[in-house]
Amino acid sequence: MWFASDNTGAAAPEMIEAIAEANSGYAPSYGADAGMERVTARIREVFEAPQAAVYLVATGTAANALALACLCPPWATVYCHRNAHVEEDECGAPEFYTGGAKLTLLDGDHARIDPASLERAIGLTANAGVHNVQKGALSLTNATEAGAVYDPAQVAELAGIARVHGIPVHMDGSRFANAVAHLGCSAADLTWKAGVDVLTFGGTKNGCLGVEAVVLFDAARAWEFELRRKRGGHLFSKHRFLSAQMEAYLEGDLWLDLAAAANARAREMADGIAALPGAVLVHPTEANAVFAAWPRAGHRAAMAAGAHYYLWPANQSLEGPDDEPLSARLVCNWATTPAEVAQLLAVLKGARAHAGV
Amino acid sequence: MWFASDNTGAAAPEMIEAIAEANSGYAPSYGADAGMERVTARIREVFEAPQAAVYLVATGTAANALALACLCPPWATVYCHRNAHVEEDECGAPEFYTGGAKLTLLDGDHARIDPASLERAIGLTANAGVHNVQKGALSLTNATEAGAVYDPAQVAELAGIARVHGIPVHMDGSRFANAVAHLGCSAADLTWKAGVDVLTFGGTKNGCLGVEAVVLFDAARAWEFELRRKRGGHLFSKHRFLSAQMEAYLEGDLWLDLAAAANARAREMADGIAALPGAVLVHPTEANAVFAAWPRAGHRAAMAAGAHYYLWPANQSLEGPDDEPLSARLVCNWATTPAEVAQLLAVLKGARAHAGV
Amino acid sequence: MWFASDNTGAAAPEMIEAIAEANSGYAPSYGADAGMERVTARIREVFEAPQAAVYLVATGTAANALALACLCPPWATVYCHRNAHVEEDECGAPEFYTGGAKLTLLDGDHARIDPASLERAIGLTANAGVHNVQKGALSLTNATEAGAVYDPAQVAELAGIARVHGIPVHMDGSRFANAVAHLGCSAADLTWKAGVDVLTFGGTKNGCLGVEAVVLFDAARAWEFELRRKRGGHLFSKHRFLSAQMEAYLEGDLWLDLAAAANARAREMADGIAALPGAVLVHPTEANAVFAAWPRAGHRAAMAAGAHYYLWPANQSLEGPDDEPLSARLVCNWATTPAEVAQLLAVLKGARAHAGV
Amino acid sequence: MWFASDNTGAAAPEMIEAIAEANSGYAPSYGADAGMERVTARIREVFEAPQAAVYLVATGTAANALALACLCPPWATVYCHRNAHVEEDECGAPEFYTGGAKLTLLDGDHARIDPASLERAIGLTANAGVHNVQKGALSLTNATEAGAVYDPAQVAELAGIARVHGIPVHMDGSRFANAVAHLGCSAADLTWKAGVDVLTFGGTKNGCLGVEAVVLFDAARAWEFELRRKRGGHLFSKHRFLSAQMEAYLEGDLWLDLAAAANARAREMADGIAALPGAVLVHPTEANAVFAAWPRAGHRAAMAAGAHYYLWPANQSLEGPDDEPLSARLVCNWATTPAEVAQLLAVLKGARAHAGV
Repeated sequence: MWFASDNTGAAAPEMIEAIAEANSGYAPSYGADAGMERVTARIREVFEAPQAAVYLVATGTAANALALACLCPPWATVYCHRNAHVEEDECGAPEFYTGGAKLTLLDGDHARIDPASLERAIGLTANAGVHNVQKGALSLTNATEAGAVYDPAQVAELAGIARVHGIPVHMDGSRFANAVAHLGCSAADLTWKAGVDVLTFGGTKNGCLGVEAVVLFDAARAWEFELRRKRGGHLFSKHRFLSAQMEAYLEGDLWLDLAAAANARAREMADGIAALPGAVLVHPTEANAVFAAWPRAGHRAAMAAGAHYYLWPANQSLEGPDDEPLSARLVCNWATTPAEVAQLLAVLKGARAHAGV
Repeated sequence: MWFASDNTGAAAPEMIEAIAEANSGYAPSYGADAGMERVTARIREVFEAPQAAVYLVATGTAANALALACLCPPWATVYCHRNAHVEEDECGAPEFYTGGAKLTLLDGDHARIDPASLERAIGLTANAGVHNVQKGALSLTNATEAGAVYDPAQVAELAGIARVHGIPVHMDGSRFANAVAHLGCSAADLTWKAGVDVLTFGGTKNGCLGVEAVVLFDAARAWEFELRRKRGGHLFSKHRFLSAQMEAYLEGDLWLDLAAAANARAREMADGIAALPGAVLVHPTEANAVFAAWPRAGHRAAMAAGAHYYLWPANQSLEGPDDEPLSARLVCNWATTPAEVAQLLAVLKGARAHAGV
Repeated sequence: MWFASDNTGAAAPEMIEAIAEANSGYAPSYGADAGMERVTARIREVFEAPQAAVYLVATGTAANALALACLCPPWATVYCHRNAHVEEDECGAPEFYTGGAKLTLLDGDHARIDPASLERAIGLTANAGVHNVQKGALSLTNATEAGAVYDPAQVAELAGIARVHGIPVHMDGSRFANAVAHLGCSAADLTWKAGVDVLTFGGTKNGCLGVEAVVLFDAARAWEFELRRKRGGHLFSKHRFLSAQMEAYLEGDLWLDLAAAANARAREMADGIAALPGAVLVHPTEANAVFAAWPRAGHRAAMAAGAHYYLWPANQSLEGPDDEPLSARLVCNWATTPAEVAQLLAVLKGARAHAGV
Repeated sequence: MWFASDNTGAAAPEMIEAIAEANSGYAPSYGADAGMERVTARIREVFEAPQAAVYLVATGTAANALALACLCPPWATVYCHRNAHVEEDECGAPEFYTGGAKLTLLDGDHARIDPASLERAIGLTANAGVHNVQKGALSLTNATEAGAVYDPAQVAELAGIARVHGIPVHMDGSRFANAVAHLGCSAADLTWKAGVDVLTFGGTKNGCLGVEAVVLFDAARAWEFELRRKRGGHLFSKHRFLSAQMEAYLEGDLWLDLAAAANARAREMADGIAALPGAVLVHPTEANAVFAAWPRAGHRAAMAAGAHYYLWPANQSLEGPDDEPLSARLVCNWATTPAEVAQLLAVLKGARAHAGV
């Protein structure tokens, strides 16, 4: 019962096959492989964006930081949710890659930026003089760190505010597939049609070994991106193995199938937990992560039964009264089985029975 | 006939098997996988360095730049050969990761640093005042960019100069395996026993898909390295796939076998070319690359026959007199076959016959 | 009636005399002047810190950013009040000089950091793993941006929290003189005896032309500071003119006299405004700035009469109902006269009379 | 007899007067002072450049580094002479301000860049791919670090090469006044008319206390410059004191008079030394510095008599045979008197007589 992260799961078998198949003879290095041409063509097709520039890197942190560095100068700020991955989980990579830009932290339920919070924050710097850090870029995470999803209208509203102030929009799409699978919209609807300038399109968390595409819908910054990628040590020499993963990921919309499976498992888990007495969902379950609270006794039982997941936030303890609720994050991935979910739910149910609450 | 780079070759089949095998069920992410524990243990064993800290990244540029950033503060300089990879082929990654350190370019035949050149350069800054960039670190590339190898005594001489001046020593070992295979020495002899503080131990060019180990023989900077790696976007979430490659690479000294094969092919090629009338070796062939010059007619014939390699330096032209010598770099890799080498040599011999020189 | 900033005022005549006197014949450059020796000796005496390292720069932003860069690595965060100068008024200089550190924004009345807010923030990162920005340094501003003063006990409480977590303490003392003049304590009491590691001791706002001393109570980072200063372009060649200002500033405790004068004028102004009907002090007046709110009619009258000061925050308008209160910042400096203060108060009183409120 | 540096001399009396005069009442801060308006107007007039953007900072290192940061992105290189101040005497400030750009070191007599060396170096990177640091900017120092001067034709030749490759041109003019005074040309002839994009126009070495103007002939980067200046801590709050110096410096072409005086003293010294038996000029004396070699006995006598100057290069010793020649740098400034020069020459003559050579 591994629900700690979508990073702890295996890669989809299609990835291994693709890697093995790509490992044949010689291929131009550093992104000049034929596989990359196919990846670019396919992403342009999927996103209905024939002019987009497309690049691959191996980690989400690299993808985000490189993208933001192209959008936000060192003396400016990135507006993001205070729980965004770029703020909380990248050890300052955006600051490093931008050359010292700031991150301005915004509020909003379920890690979705509240438009009023964005308006207020940009407003404070809109007429910034030379003493102040300048307005730089907007960064949205979709699906959010709280397992919620922005729909195209919500993206468009935030991007519209950014556009009024002349700042570009980045989307951290490490779980973009989960968002699209949830919404059933097109990839274009959720990105450039809604005002997104650069997307980091995640593969790693959704069944790849380690690959993320950075999609620049406006290719004007393409060469700068290439230089930053190389300079950051993120240009792979045997690039064909990145291409192979991404190609397999896009083939037959595998990316959507994998995400849909993960989402479905999360849905089952959320429904099951919500039905438990004393349990409550902390965030809506729109992607592949469940945020819920239930009595401590259930957590003890689950962990004793071998369930892996994080209490969320971390400063909670398994020590204490049985019936005090503790909140947790449980993440499903493409490989999570209905049986695993059912097993956890059964443990939780049993715990309640035993606890006699 | 692909001799353009050791980056254009395929990965060894052991790598694909290792990746496939690692892709089983759940595993802790971000370097906490059991495979990484085995990698660390094995590298400590191979290097007879039980205290060493070991980290994996996916590219040589990342490995070098992260290592140098731990050794050289922003206001100091890295002493390196003027043809070093860190100077010529990393788009300024060392400058980026160090926060703006300088690279002081040294001379020496065959891309090996001349000890006198190092002495002179350090001497100029040894008593540097506040106006001057300070002495920072020494970086050696072994095997060198010219296909030569430093033996342990040569490393020790240069490292000794560095030690006198109190600066640490980095070895860019993207082709470390080729150097050890050539020398037949131990990995320890060529590194910490000779005064090397940090080694970037390459796998990518020698049969892996993309993995380099950074070995800190003094673990004092280990945590700093970890933070820099994460901040640079080089900490893999599904880290097991890096571990798997490195584990397979070390298993049964595969790394040495692969390198020995590549070296042997280069040796055959060098001998064959040297025997051609009008041909000359530009650098000694000690690792897996041949640097040689021969008449233009031979290059024309080789390229017409489908040989891939670079004229070296690049500013030479296939247009011009038949018998004017042009110099070239030809790189063998673990998978290069004797037949491929023989095929090239036959073409070159034939070209001479036809040209009637 | 110039109350816009303590930066708009003239320098004390002693400064001009000191500059003129220093301008005699030749003097060693770059800080090796005899004047600097006297400055160091005098600051060590004033601060009862015979081991302190002392350096001069010309701007407060440089002093703060250089100091923080010595205390906080690139992958860490500076804890500061959300209205601190380093956050709001330096265009990201701390981020630039630290190489991309973060600033974690704390709350607290009157721009004084609330200890609970500090505890909470450090607590969140105290056990930070590699994914998170690390705890770096604490930065206090004394006097604060809201014209309040930390007393030695308050400094000691915050510095004590920092010490528990092993992080150093910086004090932005651009108005340190005003704080000491208000408290009547010793300079040592308010700094190293209370746990401050590095002080930026301001002169510019308090009667100098442009000079700030950075006082490192622990000299271990002195050489690093010197290199950072030079590398930042802040080492003056004709350094004697910085030394001369600082020497004059310290001579006979001129720094305290100037600050006491400014504080006294602010006190008079605060008392006068507080006595007006409909007026209220927004922050306590403990240094040389008054933060107060009074009806718009009074602001209109004051500005019409030639008073210079800022509505604070800036997003208020002189357009609107007469009796709606607007808040403002009024800053006195060493040269502000009782007559100027009285003139403003008279205008404000008259405005009320005319407005018939 | 102070010939160690033009930094050890006093400021011209006009500077002190200007400072004193500026110290009257209140003035807008941060560059909004009326004096700065006059400075901008006057520099535009002197340089016949009505569109130029003009900014003041206090040190030459800051001026150069800020200017280069506006011209050269982090992944590019600055072409400069290997003895340029930006390379040798700024502790890596250009690397810091550019975010890690490289400096490519060029050759040429008398610290003047040889056009062939520039051609060759740019040529090597002209078609640089993503692995290589890109071509960034050309930086000329005029007068050079060897006391030589580029005339307009020489500047135009180098700038022409730069223009062909699409890179901008910076002139480090810390001794620009000495160059113009030597050439008798117009300031425009030596800068934008010859292809210079940004000039750092020095005052500090030539009689000011500490002020340098950065002149952007193309104002497109003006706002970026302002942000970089502030972020670097180089925007003065009491800016009027920078303005006052620069205004006095330009008034009645004082800058040219001061430089002409220094140049004349250097000329006298050079002529006198050249006439000594066994002496030789190492570089042409075109500005205010003399580079010459003469027998050790003369150096011993001079230093015994209280002369301050540097053996150049530094690795020479006063210990050794009397008649072995040692080379030295002697710098005159605006205040150097003919009597001081004569005194030194007399000592040198006497030394020869005593030595009986």
